[in-house]
Order: sequence, then structure tokens, then C-alpha cells
Amino acid sequence: MMKIVILRIGHRPQRDQRVTTHVGLTARALGASTMLLASNDKGVVQSINEVSRQWGGNFIARTVTSWKQEIHDWKDKGGKVVHLTMYGRNLPDVIDEISGIEPLMIVVGAEKVPPGIYQMADWNVAVGSQPHSEIAALAVFLDRLHTLGNNDPLALEFPGGNLKIIASERGKNMEEKY
Amino acid sequence: MMKIVILRIGHRPQRDQRVTTHVGLTARALGASTMLLASNDKGVVQSINEVSRQWGGNFIARTVTSWKQEIHDWKDKGGKVVHLTMYGRNLPDVIDEISGIEPLMIVVGAEKVPPGIYQMADWNVAVGSQPHSEIAALAVFLDRLHTLGNNDPLALEFPGGNLKIIASERGKNMEEKY
Repeated sequence: MMKIVILRIGHRPQRDQRVTTHVGLTARALGASTMLLASNDKGVVQSINEVSRQWGGNFIARTVTSWKQEIHDWKDKGGKVVHLTMYGRNLPDVIDEISGIEPLMIVVGAEKVPPGIYQMADWNVAVGSQPHSEIAALAVFLDRLHTLGNNDPLALEFPGGNLKIIASERGKNMEEKY
Repeated sequence: MMKIVILRIGHRPQRDQRVTTHVGLTARALGASTMLLASNDKGVVQSINEVSRQWGGNFIARTVTSWKQEIHDWKDKGGKVVHLTMYGRNLPDVIDEISGIEPLMIVVGAEKVPPGIYQMADWNVAVGSQPHSEIAALAVFLDRLHTLGNNDPLALEFPGGNLKIIASERGKNMEEKY
């Protein structure tokens, strides 16, 4: 899979904890490698990393002090940046440009984002131009991007974890290793 | 587009308000017609319906008193029921069975769901077998289902609203009708 890093900005401690946790877990489940959280909210990254520890794979969440610095550093190293925003160009119109670009940073804002991000991003991308959810937007973006690259993110393996679900038609079947 | 109704169960007032709002807005943005909320939380349905009023389209959210009754009534009318759960069969393995089935109810649980739902659903479907987000799961499910039916949900029109975004490369461009 291609290397994809999520940068979560605009996070307000307390108020956004659950939504940011969903962003991180979605990123992990759909094949991103890292979530950088531009907020000093250790609880969120701890709970995401605890899921990774239990369920396997190499996903890492960590806090960063400056989202601007992270983007600058990323671009200095030749990385490209997508900003998900309902004001941007619609995903079906830009996905072919973005497909195959690596490494890719995906900026996921909360309700308010600093205006500078629209200029710093290489692409401002709308997952539909309707108000909905940054979690849903990230999920559809990652799913379509991987699928276009001939990888099904739902077929990903997460080696090394303690917990594993065995798919079943009815009810719950979970394997615990130790 | 095919007729799709979302049934949100396990919602706890206060605690789940934001996540359930994201579920409803995601359902609307990705082409469902209705969200039934099995909880007496009027605030959530009001805020979703306010988005529909402002942004157009025919999506409706409303509260219901019994999720079981809703499923029974749905099945009595010949409808089929998908329950999204990370314990179910993986989406890529079942999507062909589900594609084209109409009308379809999609049950979206919060953290805890009543065990009976696994028996009542026609399909228990995992959007990957990793813990992530019911919002992301719903988004990917709807996106893949519509795409398989040759509809791009990101190309949907929402007629009749007051607000409309004009897609742009940088910044925000919103049209207000009155």
C-alpha cells in the first residue's frame, strides 16, 4: 500500500475527542500509516495507539505542535498534500491526478480550519459538496484512492495483534491470542 | 437512486449526539432517503432536518419508538435489512448479493447493540473487521453500493436548498439564494 499520513487540525480538546478518535481509527482501518494530531490532546492518541496494540498493524498516532511546520517539512521532503474540504474540487474530478502520488498527506479539519490551509494544500478536495462528516469524507477518499490503485483496503491484514475477528454470518466470533 | 433507509440504534442522548448527527448527514450526502433514530432525541433530528432545509434534497430524519417494530414493519413490506457490524461478513464478500436489492434498510449501531439484531438482519456486514467508526462504515457501504449500481453518490444533486457550494481550487465559494 502507498504511504499515507493523516494530519488532523482544528481539534478542540474535550469537544472533538470522539470524532478525532473516529478519524484516527478510520485512517488505520483503511490503510493510512500515521495520524499526526495538531493538538496537545494525549488521551486521543493513547486510545488510538491502544487499539493498534491490541488489534495489530503498524499504525501510529502522535501529537505535533505546529500543523504548519508539519506541512512545510512534508513538502520539503517531496511529499504532496490533500486537504479535505467540502469547498474543494469534487473527488471524482481530481482522483486521477492524485492516484499514485506518494507520499501523501491528507489534512482533515474539524469545524473550523485556519484559512492558510487552502493555500498550502496541493489539492483541496470535496467528498461531495454537501455538509456531512470529516470521518465519512476520509473513509470514502481512502477507499477510492486505494481501490483505484488496485488495493482493497477492506482486505488489509493487521499482523501482530492480540485480538482478531473471524467473520461470521450471525453473532460475534473473536479470537484472543493470549 | 435506490431507496435506502438508515435505522440508527443504540444512541445515547447527549453522549452520541455528534456521532449520530454525522451518521445522518453522511446518509443524506451519500444518497439515503431517511434516517430513523430509535431514541427520543429530538435535537439530533432537528439539526439534521435543518441541514436538509438549507441545503436541499428530500432527506428526512425522524425519531421512532421501537427499532424492533420498525424492522418488523419493514420486512412485512418486503424490505431487506443490512446490519453494519465489524463481526459480520466482509463487505467485498457480500456486496454482490446486496446490490440491486430494494428497498434496503441499513442498521447502524452505536457502541453497544441489542443481540437480537444479529438474528433479525438479512445480512450482518463488516466494513473491514477492525474497530473504527460507524460513520466511516456507513460511508464506505453506501459509496460502494451506489457505485456498483452505476451511480456516483458524489454527483448527487440536492434541489431546492438555499445554500450551494461552487467547487473551487482554493478557498470558499458559496451561493446563497435568498
